[in-house]
Amino acid sequence: MSERKNNYRSKRYLITGFSGFVSRNFIEYLNSKNEDFEILGIDIRIPDFEYEFYNNLKINFQKTDLREREKLCKLVYDFQPDYILHLASYSSVAGSWENPANSFQNNLNIFLNLLEVVKTIRSMCRIILVGSSEEYGDVKISDLPLVEEKIPNPSSPFGIARLSQEMLAKLYVEVHGLDIILTRSFNHIGAGQGENFAVASFTKQLVELKFHSNGDFVIAGDVSIVRDFIDVRDVVRAYYLLFQEGRKGEIYNVCSGYGISLQNIINIMSDILNLNITIKEDISLRRPKDNSVIIGSNKKIKSEIGWENEISLEDSLSNMINYYLHNSEISASNKLPTL
Amino acid sequence: MSERKNNYRSKRYLITGFSGFVSRNFIEYLNSKNEDFEILGIDIRIPDFEYEFYNNLKINFQKTDLREREKLCKLVYDFQPDYILHLASYSSVAGSWENPANSFQNNLNIFLNLLEVVKTIRSMCRIILVGSSEEYGDVKISDLPLVEEKIPNPSSPFGIARLSQEMLAKLYVEVHGLDIILTRSFNHIGAGQGENFAVASFTKQLVELKFHSNGDFVIAGDVSIVRDFIDVRDVVRAYYLLFQEGRKGEIYNVCSGYGISLQNIINIMSDILNLNITIKEDISLRRPKDNSVIIGSNKKIKSEIGWENEISLEDSLSNMINYYLHNSEISASNKLPTL
Repeated sequence: MSERKNNYRSKRYLITGFSGFVSRNFIEYLNSKNEDFEILGIDIRIPDFEYEFYNNLKINFQKTDLREREKLCKLVYDFQPDYILHLASYSSVAGSWENPANSFQNNLNIFLNLLEVVKTIRSMCRIILVGSSEEYGDVKISDLPLVEEKIPNPSSPFGIARLSQEMLAKLYVEVHGLDIILTRSFNHIGAGQGENFAVASFTKQLVELKFHSNGDFVIAGDVSIVRDFIDVRDVVRAYYLLFQEGRKGEIYNVCSGYGISLQNIINIMSDILNLNITIKEDISLRRPKDNSVIIGSNKKIKSEIGWENEISLEDSLSNMINYYLHNSEISASNKLPTL
Repeated sequence: MSERKNNYRSKRYLITGFSGFVSRNFIEYLNSKNEDFEILGIDIRIPDFEYEFYNNLKINFQKTDLREREKLCKLVYDFQPDYILHLASYSSVAGSWENPANSFQNNLNIFLNLLEVVKTIRSMCRIILVGSSEEYGDVKISDLPLVEEKIPNPSSPFGIARLSQEMLAKLYVEVHGLDIILTRSFNHIGAGQGENFAVASFTKQLVELKFHSNGDFVIAGDVSIVRDFIDVRDVVRAYYLLFQEGRKGEIYNVCSGYGISLQNIINIMSDILNLNITIKEDISLRRPKDNSVIIGSNKKIKSEIGWENEISLEDSLSNMINYYLHNSEISASNKLPTL
């Protein structure tokens, strides 16, 4: 860390869900800023990336279950964060159908614990609550692109849990004066995303087809659905800017503004890999209820904080393929050029 | 029980929150119908009323925590209810500000357990989910009386938990085909209501003033707020009729259609008791955020199932006073006429 004058105090970020995909990208973004930051990472899982080696960041990690309010209270009080990025969540829509209570236990109750802690210790920190495009739920084509004023109509237990979280956050802003900014973040994609997410699963399957030729088909759920995909690096830059420029109590869509079907995602990736494949639908991957098209409007975040989404879908997908090539078992057995 | 032909099977009601105020009134209503009914009562608390002595009812009680899904599953499977009246809840709005997580744990998660059980055992039973006028939350005067189509905007953790419950129920109707009817029930009053509810607290205070003259004031929160009060006997008759005539997946307001301030409630009760009192406000009884006026429209339930609210506010209040006179310590030390 570079030396600073005595009265200087680096900005402090508390990150929940520290061990996850979005957190890692947020940390990398902070590290790229050429400023000193202190980070306290909290997660129930130990991170599988090496967080000690970022030049500009002083990072501590605490393995913590956010349901343990007393422990959380002590950590937040001792750290005195300027910002809290609340990423911890049970983010599987499919899983929320299997076990709906989990969506509430793990999304809502831990968030309430965090808010109660911030309220109790009278912290003035700014919090970003990451919500989801799933809150919009059932929408008509005429409602697209979705703006923040649209009345939500969630159509999965996950979406309902997220919407409840948002309503609670607004109440804590209004009644208890907490400084919370809310996002409705659309489908993330990016290198290192978990393979339980559709595009990461396609990446894995396609790269393995390319180098192992285990047949010529990709297994997917309903590939006709259209989603608004955004690169995780654009997402974390939005969060950084929202901490600086966002308005307390406001909801911001974080999205690309464009929709694409899963079918077309697979086609683009197949072209990048020069593969000719067939899609085989696995009915078990269909959800009990799903929305055919979700596309967000990013007009509000663009006009209010000057954020722009910068990474094209093709770049994101190439990046995912390259990452998988160089970080999977395939890379051990194949000398591969970067595509 | 009267004898019946072999192929006759009494209708079976499963009642959660069996030991509470609404349940007791529902049972009394069933008993008045001159039909045979079987009831399985479930509650975490043992009832303090004698449920064995109703002529037309065969009642079993099981002390059960609805969070125990396996036990609940066995009970519901063995009983094979025709109807489930889901009254179990943590129904304190004030308490939801003290401990918001409780509202979710005790309202939402237990309801999800119940729905999952009904879904798992493929029961065709009809369920009434009792919701709350608190779901409407912040409303404009021009929105009154509140109709079911009004977009909810809950302004307490309790209201948010109730709305989440309603959204989940609608999803289970649509996706899993469950037969659920939803109510938004407004402020209940009636004999035997717990003294943590405003009107029951006024009853107790006023009757004690009358016979002990411990000063001349009634302690209350903000008495300017206007609410739509409905006698619990009208409420349980609505639930009975909704089981027969309600439409699956629909929401019904259960309310009187009239608003009255707490101040006026106290005035009416003082007149009945011929008391001249002063109201002293206890600031600690104020909620962090409250709605000044809530009045519902009962047009939908009236037109669809032919229900009418029959008991006047004055009758309800007299009844509460009489009940308190004859069931409290006062009755032991005073020979009191029925007022």
